[in-house]
Amino acid sequence: MTFVKLYKTGQKQEKAMPDIAIVGSVALDSVKTPFGERNDVLGGAATYASFAASFFAKPGIIAVVGEDFPEAHLELLRKRGIDLRGLEKEGRTFRWQGSYEYDMNEAKTLKTELNSFENFNPKVPEEYKKAGYVFLANINPELQMKVLEQIKKPKLAMLDTMNLWISTKKQKLLEAIKKVDLLLLNDSEARQLFETPNLVKAAMQALKLGPKHVIIKKGEHGALYFTEQNHFSAPSYPLETIKDPTGCGDSFAGALIGYLAKTNDNSEKNIRKAIIYGSTIASFNAEDFSLERMKRLNMEEIEKRYSEFERIREF
Amino acid sequence: MTFVKLYKTGQKQEKAMPDIAIVGSVALDSVKTPFGERNDVLGGAATYASFAASFFAKPGIIAVVGEDFPEAHLELLRKRGIDLRGLEKEGRTFRWQGSYEYDMNEAKTLKTELNSFENFNPKVPEEYKKAGYVFLANINPELQMKVLEQIKKPKLAMLDTMNLWISTKKQKLLEAIKKVDLLLLNDSEARQLFETPNLVKAAMQALKLGPKHVIIKKGEHGALYFTEQNHFSAPSYPLETIKDPTGCGDSFAGALIGYLAKTNDNSEKNIRKAIIYGSTIASFNAEDFSLERMKRLNMEEIEKRYSEFERIREF
Repeated sequence: MTFVKLYKTGQKQEKAMPDIAIVGSVALDSVKTPFGERNDVLGGAATYASFAASFFAKPGIIAVVGEDFPEAHLELLRKRGIDLRGLEKEGRTFRWQGSYEYDMNEAKTLKTELNSFENFNPKVPEEYKKAGYVFLANINPELQMKVLEQIKKPKLAMLDTMNLWISTKKQKLLEAIKKVDLLLLNDSEARQLFETPNLVKAAMQALKLGPKHVIIKKGEHGALYFTEQNHFSAPSYPLETIKDPTGCGDSFAGALIGYLAKTNDNSEKNIRKAIIYGSTIASFNAEDFSLERMKRLNMEEIEKRYSEFERIREF
Repeated sequence: MTFVKLYKTGQKQEKAMPDIAIVGSVALDSVKTPFGERNDVLGGAATYASFAASFFAKPGIIAVVGEDFPEAHLELLRKRGIDLRGLEKEGRTFRWQGSYEYDMNEAKTLKTELNSFENFNPKVPEEYKKAGYVFLANINPELQMKVLEQIKKPKLAMLDTMNLWISTKKQKLLEAIKKVDLLLLNDSEARQLFETPNLVKAAMQALKLGPKHVIIKKGEHGALYFTEQNHFSAPSYPLETIKDPTGCGDSFAGALIGYLAKTNDNSEKNIRKAIIYGSTIASFNAEDFSLERMKRLNMEEIEKRYSEFERIREF
């Protein structure tokens, strides 16, 4: 096992700590939607999340890729200022194959090859251990806990998960949820985990476990944010064409925690803003395959769409 | 065929015109939800809509009930100031029987008895013909047109429909839509009518037909409002317990047009406010069976929840 080189030969050796430690998959995706098909393109929860976060702050990835992982992808992440000291290299890259039906609501997973993730044992680099923000993206909850334990007193730890872990590792997942400040779920996962069709009830139960903040992602219907006292309903952006929704949830999460890290403010008021930045980046992400749209996205476009979100909800 | 008496003997004979003419069903519903069961209770689109509208303005119903329709129900509507001069009495009352699964998202229709609605030929009373507002609630689009043709120059005509008419009377429905100012649909109907899973595309197509305003109801996910230039996303109210969602869409519509009639302002800005009043009343309606919650609802509660809607979307 080796670690990915953080810098290419001759590049300046920057020593800055990342603001956000992000654990999750870095993958090669094969995706089919009604608007086209892409094979072995850059994907993975940690990839989308860290790229989205990089618009606001400095993320560091904790993950593993294979020897077959294209150098061009690493270069893309490096150029965004994403810290790769926590990215190992071993065996063959994790691969996900999925397709979307015409309604684009939910991905149908056709194939998952864990490959190098099968025996992944995350080691948090020294430089990451003082990161103020931690995002435990969708991954085995035991690994999520292992990462969280290695970070010293983060200001905010956020956890995402998926149906697989709710079915197979529910107890471990609940233990992990107890240890984080912000729980992120999509609506079907919230219903499944708390065994209720009512999202308000699910959120109330989640808050009782420990997290002070619960965010439920609803895809094209926006997102809900619950604290013990309050409720926030974020609209979604009205896109006429959605080419590929892969990574939207992770981009949402990455931008959200990126904005929090940038502003260093975890108040409810600021989390509401962070959710809108998350929705903004996620809406761009859906406009093209893989990270294509994010690659050509700039802050001016982001701020413009953010202000459109303000008009969308005005009455 | 007879007409329902507008006033009980001895009551003051008020001659005021209604502000809003509402055509649609007045029914006896039998409903089963995970929270209970009610048989032959007051229901129907025109009933819910006119009751909801009566918090803001004076509605007049155009419909037919049977000889078996309880006088107590008529008395309830009269007391709310709802004009019944357009309510005929003949044969047996329209009956709907439905149930909701645990997720409460969509009613499953178990039985529909058209009864006196089978040969209903709506006659608009003289007193209604100058109504400034018209709501063509869910009913055969040919009857909707017949009603609209009898109203002289309304300031705003709004049309709602259902999957049945999209399947069986699509051409007539499209003709009727061309004649109204505001089209109201739920999300599945919008997708079905315009043959696209994308609600933005569906709304754009609807706007091309003629209506200046298109509102798509999304149940627990709120509502979307489209004009050619703008888009508004209304949140839903986070209810922990929904006892019976029957009539929520009609209550939403009734309150919406009631508020427009009260303020006599059909600007986009005011329609946004009207949508929030609609969402407010609909959220109360779901809290109990039939019209039970609306019967004990007052303006203070309405204004309080309206201002909660303001906080829900603030960022």
